[in-house]
Amino acid sequence: MTEAVTVLGLGPMGYALAAAFAQAGHPTTTWNRTTTRPTPHGTTRAASVAEAVAASPLTVVCLIDYDATRAVLAQAEDKLKGRHLVVLTSGSPESARELAAWAADHGITYTDGAIMTPTESIGTDAATILHSGHEVDLAALGGTQRFLGEDPGRAAGYDVALLDLFWTSVAGVIHSFAMARAENITPAELAPFANGIGTLIPWVVDEIAGRLETDQHGDGSSNISSAAAGMAHIIETAAAHEIDASVLRAVHALATRAIDAGHGADDVSRLTRELERTSGS
Amino acid sequence: MTEAVTVLGLGPMGYALAAAFAQAGHPTTTWNRTTTRPTPHGTTRAASVAEAVAASPLTVVCLIDYDATRAVLAQAEDKLKGRHLVVLTSGSPESARELAAWAADHGITYTDGAIMTPTESIGTDAATILHSGHEVDLAALGGTQRFLGEDPGRAAGYDVALLDLFWTSVAGVIHSFAMARAENITPAELAPFANGIGTLIPWVVDEIAGRLETDQHGDGSSNISSAAAGMAHIIETAAAHEIDASVLRAVHALATRAIDAGHGADDVSRLTRELERTSGS
Repeated sequence: MTEAVTVLGLGPMGYALAAAFAQAGHPTTTWNRTTTRPTPHGTTRAASVAEAVAASPLTVVCLIDYDATRAVLAQAEDKLKGRHLVVLTSGSPESARELAAWAADHGITYTDGAIMTPTESIGTDAATILHSGHEVDLAALGGTQRFLGEDPGRAAGYDVALLDLFWTSVAGVIHSFAMARAENITPAELAPFANGIGTLIPWVVDEIAGRLETDQHGDGSSNISSAAAGMAHIIETAAAHEIDASVLRAVHALATRAIDAGHGADDVSRLTRELERTSGS
Repeated sequence: MTEAVTVLGLGPMGYALAAAFAQAGHPTTTWNRTTTRPTPHGTTRAASVAEAVAASPLTVVCLIDYDATRAVLAQAEDKLKGRHLVVLTSGSPESARELAAWAADHGITYTDGAIMTPTESIGTDAATILHSGHEVDLAALGGTQRFLGEDPGRAAGYDVALLDLFWTSVAGVIHSFAMARAENITPAELAPFANGIGTLIPWVVDEIAGRLETDQHGDGSSNISSAAAGMAHIIETAAAHEIDASVLRAVHALATRAIDAGHGADDVSRLTRELERTSGS
């Protein structure tokens, strides 16, 4: 018989997780702080965190952050003893490691995971979920499941780096539409070409990864000085249209710092080292 | 017989353009400020700009910026009269319109273009080149050729918006590798997942474009408040590792401004309007 699963948190992602477990035949119990949020068809709503945790050997948590996660788990720490806890809340590697230490102190088997794809992907081939700490079978959630090792903070480490890339790119999308509109180019006109830029990203990722692996940044097809010159044109155009350009100004300032340090002829891959050279900010 | 073409500028992109014209059977003349740069096989190097321009009815320019372009063209303005000038230099829409006005004053047919793909793409199906002003046949350069209308600044308008997206995304790639390294995740380990994030960008582009077309930002699957909370975790992790986070801090500040203005529950698409609301900066 398929193992019972408890899901704590019925936000859009928690709902999708519970629905996928139920769909895959796991007897599924859910709990949410407020009862206004629906529980998926085929799942059973528990009246308390302790009741929910007691219903299954495996409890999956998907809440807004680690503070909320700790507050909720504190309501059932006795019941969790000897059971397996999988926290899919998004947060820093340090938060994950702290929660893992708390779990170890309470005799709880701990897995920390990061969901890399949108809610709609859960239960389909498009899902990608990374986890670390204690290895667990999450096949019911579909797609690509990757175990990254015993450091419980490792999945969150990937999560932080990849969300960083995601939100920075989204900021680029948002800004490019503002720039286009100022030139009377509609979002629908720009969109197909913006998607074309998206297809260049894997090329950039592989190029930069290769250079970082060997720490060789010379003979770049895209050197820092010409990149900075290109950014300056964009910033000038934004200023002429009175569009906020603070994000690209920060990128330009980083490039300028690398040029001032004598790295203008290097590939933009060199900027990763420049970020590491800086304390604080 | 295939029309003769002159290419001014033999940087990596100018070289690729000249090679593609020659490959497609156009008698091709080249010029470069210094003669240390090679000219492609099958092309003829001219001794001066005037001699190069005189060799063909069509002159294509690919130099570092519009200042360099104007300085070079001034050396042959008599020879350009009655001929067709195609400027593929990257710059602001305003620079393109100014150069078009200069060309009109000198009896020169003017096209302004923007090359959206890397040097390696030229002459292949992967090339994408946009142009505006006077329509021109650039089939020899391969791939997708798109005429955007008679405003000579329109191609540069697309170029500025798309390079904005490109460089902001590249900044995200650079930063994500720094974050990963701080967590002992190597570039090679992160790269496949970073490429996975790239595949989410078209989804984001289409979602945001659709919302901007109707100016409807409610009921977002990705609201500004939760995005800001996610960014805060990333910024904290960067600070803990003494990695510069100035770019994501600028994105976070924009989101915070939108939240303070009462738009926290709106989709991130609302941030495009927030950028437009701001003067200067």
